[in-house]
Amino acid sequence: MNNYPKKVYLNGDILDYADAKISVFDRGFLFGDGVYEVMVQTNGHFFYGKEHFDRLSECLKKVYIDFDTTTLPTKIEDLLKASDLSKQDSLIYIQVTRGVAPRKHSFPANTPPTFMMYALPFKLPDINKNNIRITTLPDYRWHRCDIKMTSLLGNVMANDHAAKQATHEAVFIRDGRVTEGSHSNIFFVKDGVVYTHPANEHILNGITRQIVIQLCNELTIEVIERAISKKDIANMDEAFLTGTTTQIAAIQQIDNHILYKDNESGFITQKLQQAFSDLKNKKGLAL
Amino acid sequence: MNNYPKKVYLNGDILDYADAKISVFDRGFLFGDGVYEVMVQTNGHFFYGKEHFDRLSECLKKVYIDFDTTTLPTKIEDLLKASDLSKQDSLIYIQVTRGVAPRKHSFPANTPPTFMMYALPFKLPDINKNNIRITTLPDYRWHRCDIKMTSLLGNVMANDHAAKQATHEAVFIRDGRVTEGSHSNIFFVKDGVVYTHPANEHILNGITRQIVIQLCNELTIEVIERAISKKDIANMDEAFLTGTTTQIAAIQQIDNHILYKDNESGFITQKLQQAFSDLKNKKGLAL
Repeated sequence: MNNYPKKVYLNGDILDYADAKISVFDRGFLFGDGVYEVMVQTNGHFFYGKEHFDRLSECLKKVYIDFDTTTLPTKIEDLLKASDLSKQDSLIYIQVTRGVAPRKHSFPANTPPTFMMYALPFKLPDINKNNIRITTLPDYRWHRCDIKMTSLLGNVMANDHAAKQATHEAVFIRDGRVTEGSHSNIFFVKDGVVYTHPANEHILNGITRQIVIQLCNELTIEVIERAISKKDIANMDEAFLTGTTTQIAAIQQIDNHILYKDNESGFITQKLQQAFSDLKNKKGLAL
Repeated sequence: MNNYPKKVYLNGDILDYADAKISVFDRGFLFGDGVYEVMVQTNGHFFYGKEHFDRLSECLKKVYIDFDTTTLPTKIEDLLKASDLSKQDSLIYIQVTRGVAPRKHSFPANTPPTFMMYALPFKLPDINKNNIRITTLPDYRWHRCDIKMTSLLGNVMANDHAAKQATHEAVFIRDGRVTEGSHSNIFFVKDGVVYTHPANEHILNGITRQIVIQLCNELTIEVIERAISKKDIANMDEAFLTGTTTQIAAIQQIDNHILYKDNESGFITQKLQQAFSDLKNKKGLAL
């Protein structure tokens, strides 16, 4: 995924990526004043597209950016076509900022939002087989993690911290309890029961997180939305990360605590991974 | 101040403001992954320039952006000249981001930072005579407010909240105690003693904040770096905001609590305002 896309959609134009430029007075650049969304196209359809569009709409409302998402699917199709990715497996990134205005903290009046998207060829593996190791660190982020915003310095610093320790993700601990990763949600399993942090203002309510909860219900696996204490991590039977590109990734190690050896994972994690894989081969699904 | 500048300095070029554009893949745009500084030129010199340059260097180090600030003064002189502002009273905005790279949370390798500056004509009033009203709200920001970063969504939302209530600034309350404003520091006075939040990770250690503490010492006014409880606000004799463009601004009203009628302010606030005004007419000062 670490390449530039062929094309960028920017405020109605489809441009070569190198020509996709914005004003330095864009509030996305000056203030991180925007929201974003990441989704995938798989088997020729947007995977849980409606849920991603709905979340983008909700986040825009939460930050008071007036932007109509109803024409998004059509515009994405245009972008995919220009990118030679129509119906191809791909990743779609969407960002909306509060637009261009002279720098001033309070919101500018009558400023149209900046709307940017791009698509990359991206094939989700059938099942994520990565051997995931994670690092925990204090959750120093703000208290509105439910907003999928572009003010992400805290997240990128945490992620870099994890990378420097040769781990895959940084997972945050707030008031002694596990919240989520820098760009993923986290689940635990104990005695056959699945646990994850409730969807409040301390986590982003991931679409894959919601799918996993639904799969648990369908598979009659008990799921409790309750945060796990850091001190209880060592007592957990299984743990996994979820996210749009992560899907469901079994965790082998959390800090110094080893849950599984490489290429091994827990029974419930595997069961959910298989169910998630099956889901991708169906069409027209909704939460 | 609510105009575009004549010129923008961008990665070594001086451009008309409308031509100053960056890639949508700039991490400043995608992640709010940058830091900034605001300073003024007054009476033909940078007001506490060294302190602003030093803080920028410190913030760059805190976020691991490798950028040499030693040539900044020369580059600012070039910008001011191109902007017809040499030796003129002006405001200088400086922003450095982690540069341009395909979107990925962890830091890219070997990517030069993006360096942007602009200058606007700006005359600091002798004394800030604005009648300041402020709104308090819970400090929902992250726990590294000592970093002057561009991931400012929380700050701009708070500032807009204050503006919508026809107040001048939003001041944050963390764990029951007053931290700082969305783009200013706050001081209180009680029984002749000046109080302000200690310079830790919950506030930005403003240059004007540091100047005020130094002025208190010079004027033998006792100053204690201790946070004031929200419940004690009603018992305070005086309160004022500080900031590079705010200077020292007397607060008339905090939420529903009226400290002073319009155009009135406390004795110590006035004394500090006068001392600050005198300071601006001296040259070559350092903290």
